[in-house]
Amino acid sequence: MTITRLDPGPRLAKAVTHGETIYLMGHVASEGDADIKTQTRQVLANIEKTLGAVGSDKSKLLTVTIYLASIGDFAAMNEVWDSWVDKANAPARTTVEARLARANLKVEMTAIAAK
Amino acid sequence: MTITRLDPGPRLAKAVTHGETIYLMGHVASEGDADIKTQTRQVLANIEKTLGAVGSDKSKLLTVTIYLASIGDFAAMNEVWDSWVDKANAPARTTVEARLARANLKVEMTAIAAK
Amino acid sequence: MTITRLDPGPRLAKAVTHGETIYLMGHVASEGDADIKTQTRQVLANIEKTLGAVGSDKSKLLTVTIYLASIGDFAAMNEVWDSWVDKANAPARTTVEARLARANLKVEMTAIAAK
Repeated sequence: MTITRLDPGPRLAKAVTHGETIYLMGHVASEGDADIKTQTRQVLANIEKTLGAVGSDKSKLLTVTIYLASIGDFAAMNEVWDSWVDKANAPARTTVEARLARANLKVEMTAIAAK
Repeated sequence: MTITRLDPGPRLAKAVTHGETIYLMGHVASEGDADIKTQTRQVLANIEKTLGAVGSDKSKLLTVTIYLASIGDFAAMNEVWDSWVDKANAPARTTVEARLARANLKVEMTAIAAK
Repeated sequence: MTITRLDPGPRLAKAVTHGETIYLMGHVASEGDADIKTQTRQVLANIEKTLGAVGSDKSKLLTVTIYLASIGDFAAMNEVWDSWVDKANAPARTTVEARLARANLKVEMTAIAAK
């Protein structure tokens, strides 16, 4: 099966496609200082952009792992998620608390999708 | 490859099958107030039920990620895991500490399995 | 698709291959007491050894999840990563903070690779 990389850098690629499976890097918000709802919206918009760039879309998400810097943001994150996700094609999902690479980041999501 | 979803809700699905690969959502215990061994038993029983519902079983687990609210529960979790796992067909596994979505949850597991 | 297991034990396998996809267990350093750079080097060397044992190599990494016991070690870990990774074939990557199974472990990495 062919491997193709989206936006490959010397450290990591934004997404790697292997056959019909797409592995996304951890996506964060464009503005790290925004509140949890804004950051969640930006993370999901960035994921959507990445999926589009590799010929997929959010209806083909298979599984998403969500890391929240504070699990207290679970409800606020879900509110944005619920209005974004393709309700007829929701992925498997796992959400845990974890501190992220920069102190102002409140949410990071990684995903596996189908082509 | 075909995508099929188990118990799809508007937020997430319990499991998503893509071709011959099954992605499970993060599974938690049925009784969030139970001790670590009871919660681990319930998580594993719930995973087994999910695998059965999509035509797989625990001998076909490929990788399992285990999140413990307290890494101090590592030994107690392992005791239950060791008596449950198919010893001839154990998966790859990763265990880390992470706070979970509800404060009384002590363990959450997510997995990828083969059909 | 065939499932094959590398170094299968009664608790877990070092890697599980499913068709052309390889799931690695969480890899840690050989010497748990070493500093972050040494531990990172050892984790990456161990991953390379595992990949070699299943007929793959670091150019075929699809995605890597990095858990740092202290996210403050992000820059030091990256320094070692950057000199190790195949710059023309970097994987998708996600890095978060998480306490690990033994208190002296500073970094653990899990990965999915292509055969």
